[in-house]
Amino acid sequence: MWSDTKITAQLGIKYPIIQAGMAGNTTPELVASVSNSGGLGTIGAGYFSSEKLAEEIDKVKLLTTQPFAVNLFVPSKKHIKRAQVDLMNAWLNPYRRALDLEQPVVNLSETQQLEQQIDILIEKRVPIVSFTFGIPDVHLIRKMHEHHMIVMGTATSVEEAIVNEEAGIDIIVTQGSEAGGHRGSFLKQEDGEYPMIGSISLVPQVADAVSIPVVAAGGIMDGRGVLASLILGASGVQMGTAFLTSQESGADIAYKQAILNSTETSTVLTNAFSGKMARGIRNDFVDYLSTFRGEVPEYPIQNQLTSAIRKASTANHDHSLMSLWSGQTPRLATSRKANEVVESIVQQIEDMRFQS
Amino acid sequence: MWSDTKITAQLGIKYPIIQAGMAGNTTPELVASVSNSGGLGTIGAGYFSSEKLAEEIDKVKLLTTQPFAVNLFVPSKKHIKRAQVDLMNAWLNPYRRALDLEQPVVNLSETQQLEQQIDILIEKRVPIVSFTFGIPDVHLIRKMHEHHMIVMGTATSVEEAIVNEEAGIDIIVTQGSEAGGHRGSFLKQEDGEYPMIGSISLVPQVADAVSIPVVAAGGIMDGRGVLASLILGASGVQMGTAFLTSQESGADIAYKQAILNSTETSTVLTNAFSGKMARGIRNDFVDYLSTFRGEVPEYPIQNQLTSAIRKASTANHDHSLMSLWSGQTPRLATSRKANEVVESIVQQIEDMRFQS
Repeated sequence: MWSDTKITAQLGIKYPIIQAGMAGNTTPELVASVSNSGGLGTIGAGYFSSEKLAEEIDKVKLLTTQPFAVNLFVPSKKHIKRAQVDLMNAWLNPYRRALDLEQPVVNLSETQQLEQQIDILIEKRVPIVSFTFGIPDVHLIRKMHEHHMIVMGTATSVEEAIVNEEAGIDIIVTQGSEAGGHRGSFLKQEDGEYPMIGSISLVPQVADAVSIPVVAAGGIMDGRGVLASLILGASGVQMGTAFLTSQESGADIAYKQAILNSTETSTVLTNAFSGKMARGIRNDFVDYLSTFRGEVPEYPIQNQLTSAIRKASTANHDHSLMSLWSGQTPRLATSRKANEVVESIVQQIEDMRFQS
Repeated sequence: MWSDTKITAQLGIKYPIIQAGMAGNTTPELVASVSNSGGLGTIGAGYFSSEKLAEEIDKVKLLTTQPFAVNLFVPSKKHIKRAQVDLMNAWLNPYRRALDLEQPVVNLSETQQLEQQIDILIEKRVPIVSFTFGIPDVHLIRKMHEHHMIVMGTATSVEEAIVNEEAGIDIIVTQGSEAGGHRGSFLKQEDGEYPMIGSISLVPQVADAVSIPVVAAGGIMDGRGVLASLILGASGVQMGTAFLTSQESGADIAYKQAILNSTETSTVLTNAFSGKMARGIRNDFVDYLSTFRGEVPEYPIQNQLTSAIRKASTANHDHSLMSLWSGQTPRLATSRKANEVVESIVQQIEDMRFQS
């Protein structure tokens, strides 16, 4: 059976299909729908306070008894460059004036809460946690393992995958260059850039280099992408964009429509919204900030500077100033229910000639 | 049977595996070996004079009775910017002095020979021709069809694939962002950049949009990549790097070794060697020219300016000044014979659980 992979047994799920933890866009309904369909739903908790995280877990538990995961960001050390922040504020203030917004105060203490978040997962007995932007400290991994949690990491290169495995991570998600949203990279290439490796190259090279199960992410939208990933050496897939346009997703209607109207050439890599490189649909905000790309304060500073602008434009359903994260396969996006996304993948694979 | 696809019947081959026409690096032995193994060998004739093209076809015909292809470049209009050429010459002259080379004279007339090259293919009854960098004029396509030739085109986006199909092209090669060597792009995105779409995204979106057969290229190195491509919607694959390190390839030993010693993060996109963007392994020349990226004269001017430098460094087996084209999957490169590359793919697929 195609769906009997290492991760289905390990995670206690029926199909090796993971809904990506799209911070800011998951809802309890989305997470539960995917888990109830036999896949693995994920709460995108990267931007959550501890209180919000606890609440969200409780809500998911009311909607499903199946396993689900929580996705968290691994913080890195930050340096506020005051002159850079002042410049960026000057560039952003015209938007703020138009939207009747105040200039925000940058606050870096909020990135230090990973340990508290993990304590909540332990307390709430969340069975699976995934990390991006790096690897948690070894004492945190040990603590999660002591509480029988399965710990997933993200890699955009073979080296990042090996470092994850060596740190004790249980499952590695390979993020191909096609992926929408933030790049999970944490080790630079020799040329000083972060890796941008296509999934068809990344998956087999990582699968050959590590012995933990590999989950392919980036550009996968339907049964073809899922089965191709398994053949490339993955034990499962993680899909973001495919679930982002689903009915249960928390993305604004203008955001969903932008994806549904896009093509494979609509997305760009940009640091405009958060200070960290991410793939999203090009819009006015991306174009405006692309002029100052080298001057954008690093994550999470830029994220805080643009937060109110993004929220206000979302409230106006105006996609010109929103972060429109999307992978490179938006032509396959649909506005179905999340369970229908999972069911159609299963059906499509079972209809294919290539089976065991 | 996995290998019974639309293109195997159409091209008269046993396995849907095409050796890419790597200009400057194919040999009659490589082309014949792939064709004799049941795949489709391709003479990389992009840089050939008409005389050299005729000779090379004759040599291949002595070595195989099976179908083979010729790959040609579609020329586009060029503008020599004299000041830009003078600047580039000043930057390159230190290399020329060290290698005891003269400063070359730029000559653009050689790009106008496509019609003569096609006449040779017709005269020599070459059954299959593939094009990159654009689409030949409609009267040329009609002429090739009148002589029962199968005409293949290259696309890096859905739009490019559709334009190829509308022009009467018979088979479309989708070049994913993972691919080594020159980008075949000819239509810019809305942002003015050329597309860089990963194969796992590009193949299914193109397959859904055209009715001609699709051949996947970019990052494919073994049976996993071949079968995954077929599942994504392709009727075959085209592989360059996998054959470039084979024993029959014309690549210099230093070039082959550079690939065999590389990883997925070793390659970059550069216009340093030819004036056209291409993926290759980073070396001293790429680094030196990256400073002047915006000032590099366009193809084929830069190609002519760097030609003697590349040849001299190849003669010295010094990979620091050579164009080291490679895709993003060099960890799977091997130094086997070309027929063994084909045979191992066939064996690997037949050993897999996923079969009809």
